[in-house]
Amino acid sequence: MRLLLINPNISDSVSHLILTEAQRSASPGTEIEVMTAPFGVAYIETRFEALIGAYAAAQVAAEHHARFDAVVVAAFGDPGLTGLREVLPVPVTGLTEAALASAHLLGHRISIIAISQRIQAWYREVVESYGFGQRLASIRALDQSLTRIDGVQDEHLQALKTLAERAVTEDGADVIILAGAPLAGLARLLKGQLPVPVVDGVSSAVRHAESLFALEPGLARLGSFAPPPSKPNGGLPPAMVTLLENASHLRES
Amino acid sequence: MRLLLINPNISDSVSHLILTEAQRSASPGTEIEVMTAPFGVAYIETRFEALIGAYAAAQVAAEHHARFDAVVVAAFGDPGLTGLREVLPVPVTGLTEAALASAHLLGHRISIIAISQRIQAWYREVVESYGFGQRLASIRALDQSLTRIDGVQDEHLQALKTLAERAVTEDGADVIILAGAPLAGLARLLKGQLPVPVVDGVSSAVRHAESLFALEPGLARLGSFAPPPSKPNGGLPPAMVTLLENASHLRES
Amino acid sequence: MRLLLINPNISDSVSHLILTEAQRSASPGTEIEVMTAPFGVAYIETRFEALIGAYAAAQVAAEHHARFDAVVVAAFGDPGLTGLREVLPVPVTGLTEAALASAHLLGHRISIIAISQRIQAWYREVVESYGFGQRLASIRALDQSLTRIDGVQDEHLQALKTLAERAVTEDGADVIILAGAPLAGLARLLKGQLPVPVVDGVSSAVRHAESLFALEPGLARLGSFAPPPSKPNGGLPPAMVTLLENASHLRES
Amino acid sequence: MRLLLINPNISDSVSHLILTEAQRSASPGTEIEVMTAPFGVAYIETRFEALIGAYAAAQVAAEHHARFDAVVVAAFGDPGLTGLREVLPVPVTGLTEAALASAHLLGHRISIIAISQRIQAWYREVVESYGFGQRLASIRALDQSLTRIDGVQDEHLQALKTLAERAVTEDGADVIILAGAPLAGLARLLKGQLPVPVVDGVSSAVRHAESLFALEPGLARLGSFAPPPSKPNGGLPPAMVTLLENASHLRES
Amino acid sequence: MRLLLINPNISDSVSHLILTEAQRSASPGTEIEVMTAPFGVAYIETRFEALIGAYAAAQVAAEHHARFDAVVVAAFGDPGLTGLREVLPVPVTGLTEAALASAHLLGHRISIIAISQRIQAWYREVVESYGFGQRLASIRALDQSLTRIDGVQDEHLQALKTLAERAVTEDGADVIILAGAPLAGLARLLKGQLPVPVVDGVSSAVRHAESLFALEPGLARLGSFAPPPSKPNGGLPPAMVTLLENASHLRES
Amino acid sequence: MRLLLINPNISDSVSHLILTEAQRSASPGTEIEVMTAPFGVAYIETRFEALIGAYAAAQVAAEHHARFDAVVVAAFGDPGLTGLREVLPVPVTGLTEAALASAHLLGHRISIIAISQRIQAWYREVVESYGFGQRLASIRALDQSLTRIDGVQDEHLQALKTLAERAVTEDGADVIILAGAPLAGLARLLKGQLPVPVVDGVSSAVRHAESLFALEPGLARLGSFAPPPSKPNGGLPPAMVTLLENASHLRES
Repeated sequence: MRLLLINPNISDSVSHLILTEAQRSASPGTEIEVMTAPFGVAYIETRFEALIGAYAAAQVAAEHHARFDAVVVAAFGDPGLTGLREVLPVPVTGLTEAALASAHLLGHRISIIAISQRIQAWYREVVESYGFGQRLASIRALDQSLTRIDGVQDEHLQALKTLAERAVTEDGADVIILAGAPLAGLARLLKGQLPVPVVDGVSSAVRHAESLFALEPGLARLGSFAPPPSKPNGGLPPAMVTLLENASHLRES
Repeated sequence: MRLLLINPNISDSVSHLILTEAQRSASPGTEIEVMTAPFGVAYIETRFEALIGAYAAAQVAAEHHARFDAVVVAAFGDPGLTGLREVLPVPVTGLTEAALASAHLLGHRISIIAISQRIQAWYREVVESYGFGQRLASIRALDQSLTRIDGVQDEHLQALKTLAERAVTEDGADVIILAGAPLAGLARLLKGQLPVPVVDGVSSAVRHAESLFALEPGLARLGSFAPPPSKPNGGLPPAMVTLLENASHLRES
Repeated sequence: MRLLLINPNISDSVSHLILTEAQRSASPGTEIEVMTAPFGVAYIETRFEALIGAYAAAQVAAEHHARFDAVVVAAFGDPGLTGLREVLPVPVTGLTEAALASAHLLGHRISIIAISQRIQAWYREVVESYGFGQRLASIRALDQSLTRIDGVQDEHLQALKTLAERAVTEDGADVIILAGAPLAGLARLLKGQLPVPVVDGVSSAVRHAESLFALEPGLARLGSFAPPPSKPNGGLPPAMVTLLENASHLRES
Repeated sequence: MRLLLINPNISDSVSHLILTEAQRSASPGTEIEVMTAPFGVAYIETRFEALIGAYAAAQVAAEHHARFDAVVVAAFGDPGLTGLREVLPVPVTGLTEAALASAHLLGHRISIIAISQRIQAWYREVVESYGFGQRLASIRALDQSLTRIDGVQDEHLQALKTLAERAVTEDGADVIILAGAPLAGLARLLKGQLPVPVVDGVSSAVRHAESLFALEPGLARLGSFAPPPSKPNGGLPPAMVTLLENASHLRES
Repeated sequence: MRLLLINPNISDSVSHLILTEAQRSASPGTEIEVMTAPFGVAYIETRFEALIGAYAAAQVAAEHHARFDAVVVAAFGDPGLTGLREVLPVPVTGLTEAALASAHLLGHRISIIAISQRIQAWYREVVESYGFGQRLASIRALDQSLTRIDGVQDEHLQALKTLAERAVTEDGADVIILAGAPLAGLARLLKGQLPVPVVDGVSSAVRHAESLFALEPGLARLGSFAPPPSKPNGGLPPAMVTLLENASHLRES
Repeated sequence: MRLLLINPNISDSVSHLILTEAQRSASPGTEIEVMTAPFGVAYIETRFEALIGAYAAAQVAAEHHARFDAVVVAAFGDPGLTGLREVLPVPVTGLTEAALASAHLLGHRISIIAISQRIQAWYREVVESYGFGQRLASIRALDQSLTRIDGVQDEHLQALKTLAERAVTEDGADVIILAGAPLAGLARLLKGQLPVPVVDGVSSAVRHAESLFALEPGLARLGSFAPPPSKPNGGLPPAMVTLLENASHLRES
């Protein structure tokens, strides 16, 4: 299968981290491609940045989805995910949603380790919007400024590990999610070093996208994830117009 | 005070409905302006359309906010509202948030009357994201296709009234919200005809925006509604870049 | 419009604080009157004291409401508010309800700063009864005995400010409510000194009462805030009997 | 032990129903007394009536508690209960609280059968205030005007039974509570006729009051049910002043 | 009445603690018997151990219930309780359920004092399964290894008392539950030494079982606690087969 | 990888349905084995039957897990799952948990289609115990007696399809789970015939077990899914003793 991961940020170096971990975790026969948003910010920490990232991810998806069997929004927080699920003719998931699915299968109370203090409120809102609020033991985050977004893992390895350990011993976490594309691959690196199961968003998303492709559950033609009702639009990029106008048709075939 | 209402849809005729009700409900001395999104769809019913409307509202706000003392996102569902609250240097609210504030002051259990079946899931998610899920008695919606979005009130007056009455007698509503910019002004029209208090989003938003301006509660310099941390961006419209880069500065002064 | 604020406690000096802040925050044309409960305690901190204050507020409202266009129960915790909403022929709100409405328009997670440790449990129950439990970041309170209830602001200014700051940095508050009539006006005094928006109950209640009066949403003739069904009563003060027996009639006209 | 049941309504005939069922369900050695409120309404259906009943119950308790080992607020909805728990030197419970305790021991999902449509909203709020909202399968109520409050059982026996049966088959109730003092004794009458366990408020309250007396769990000297802090009061009935001023002292001995 | 308490663990010494406290708290005329599980572990701290204890308790109940008027699962966590409620022809409760019923009658926020760190997650899940999650102020536990399970009270008396005090002052507990059969009788020992009401599981269960027997609420013939539908079974101990096959019949008589 | 699915019921014919669907959905290289419980009932609908099935599943797992890389409890309701997660040295999941993980990736509101009315309460409790209560749109179930548990699909195909359609149109389901091992494979059969994505528990469990094996998240050595603390046991089957006593050791290696 062909799998598209969309980095809704403008950081090519983070896209490279995503690609590396995605390829390591994919099954034989899965072809991975990662695309970087053509506009936006270096990394999303707030609702306003997520609003931009959602629109950027939607544009990338609109232009390129036709070549792929499944799509992943490759930022923790999943900007644009639920909207894209309404219009794309293939399965779509995101790093948060996929990480929560994995964590759900490994324990009850989940802690999220994040790369900045500011990012926590947004993460919490997304987790709660998925109905996982009562499973959330804590979100713990680095409390230092990030000099290089693609170097967080190297620079703060010990601090990240300590946050995870405290989430277990102080917050009652049964599972740890290492959150955010800049931490892609860190779970692999820490294998065996943490006292509870550890989940990575990118590898979870790749595996779950493969499963959704294999299980063929079907697409929504009714319900709240059916394509938007037909109506006038204006001023949109051509690919997005096509996506809006063809979404219903693509689900009938 | 000068108040900007942004219609995140491309419907000029709905912008006109918004303007009319906003002017009727404003206090003396409040100057109202309504702007229509330069791109998007005719009216938002789904998450994907809301994603587009959020970005459009953000662009309008970025370009024009400097002339205004407060901003209203004038679509029920409030696309872009929480993001804009992080970056604008003035109070900002939206039709759903403002209608809920009014309803909260009038009764306990709230029903929302909506213009289409499809719109209900999105409304519910927004209401729940504000923590008002347990106050929600029901969402009831028209079950007919909308021939003219600006003519919903006229065409379906009796059906809308019946939905509201059933929300009271069958769902236990203490208050009714007539939801969506296309219903702007309907509460005024139905005055005295419904057995419980009735709330309109546009007039609520105008009044609450005036109150926030008057009360001068201050803007967030910390917490999750402080401006996004400074970081690289790329490919964004100039007004949005200015907004991102100046937001912190504007809150210090 | 004529607005009655009822202090459900026996403290005339606190009534004076309420009056001062109410007058400063009212719109032109709003006439403010504050009445003090004829019986009760100096300030309400517990459920038993609230039970007394509710009955006292009801008596004052029963005797005097006819001269007013709206009524405010002017103690945080809103003793008697939901009952009075059933019987009064005008809009009625309270300091907690109104402060929450303002806070809801300014941020997501709300912290309440209170004047005594003991008062916290009662506040929490009231906030939860309004369905705002999940929006509550924390309640923080002074931990010192109160020598003069009307002098709390002066005596404990720095401690109150520190509590608010800790609510932001440690509890994740996006908005601060300075709670209790004895703190009326403190938000105005601290303007610009706290890093997030600050809400005052008295000024919020005045502004929201004005808005409800202006928006004319109507009164409940059905639902749980309609007047109590007609039935025998006995032993009640004459004004309360009149209120009970006329409430339905007043809503028909 | 000596047990006082306070009817917070003015209906002597309902007090008689309460007394009869209380005596039938009491253990040997328990002396029962029922007192009727000196002021109020015939039966409480709304928040405003509950506010009155709470104050009336408080007055009766203040005047008479000294002769008793435990007190029961004998109206479903428990007006005044949580306040009285702060000040009385003996265990206190109410019909709703006690019925929920019994129901909790008999099944998971609980339905309440009530005597009037209007009473449901108030009951629901009380049940939710006890944290039993998620255990509540439904509240179902008679939909006919009540000619004699003490004759509800006789007049509407079959309708009440049908409501209970529908709560089981349609709402998934595991247990039924027959709610309200006017239904005291009905559970006994229907023994064996309903397909799930049936709970009566009066007999539950009597038995649980006996258990609390026997178990001697102690009274609160700290926490939110400790007596109100000492402070000035004014205009209150002498017995209530004594109760307020002595409550702390009584818990120290 | 004859009351059976089943210790789902293999510790005879704990059964002795249970028996002693049960006899001290029983009403005149109540005959107490305690039986120890024929297989299992010394004390249950985890879900896997609870799974074993549930099956052991079910076997004991199946073999011996016929001689008794009510049954108590005498381990905090209530292994097997909800299952046994479906099949036994007499009332059945457990230490957690009964302690929560008592605590519910004594205050709002409840803290549980437990004997080991590990046991907390299981306790929390059980409390939440009963819908008491929002009433739970905290679970606090000893942080030392247990040398003799029947000697916990003696060995750790001061530590347990300190945990209870901190639950009141730091966690806002209104009531304390001393949890676990190994702490049976400790509440009695600490009478008057803690600043809030204290609940013991064994005495609560005995008293509530007596009340259920006296109130005769009836057994479920419909709903989710009716006996399992008739169907093939195999490989089960004879007493359990009899229980499964006769449960419906026993409820008809 | 080698995957063990344990049918906690005694129905060999249902084990065959499980095996068939598991083999069809497994990846190349996955070896499937299904084992049937040596004791228990034909199919689990109630808490008591689940208690038996949990113990039976634990025995099968204890005896046979050593030959496998992952284990699935192959009954909807997952009897024994959370306990086994504490002791097995390999990933373990169950049909409900796995189906919910898949559904979570496909839509927001989930409906479950079940084979009997009675089974619904138990399913609901399990779903809520996983924190998915607010995602649950409805549980709908056949209302006919089951003549052959392995023939439910054939006999009731149209009724099951109708239940699913009504869950979408009346309950607002975005995704349908066809629940219970007796329905294994039905989702495959109905492919394209339902208007929303359809999830099967067996195929979901197989795919997710494969993913957990591939992702190697690690096992819990701390937290609530670490092995039970070492302590005396007695009367248990030898394999279960070994499992209890070796669980910690197996996680260290």
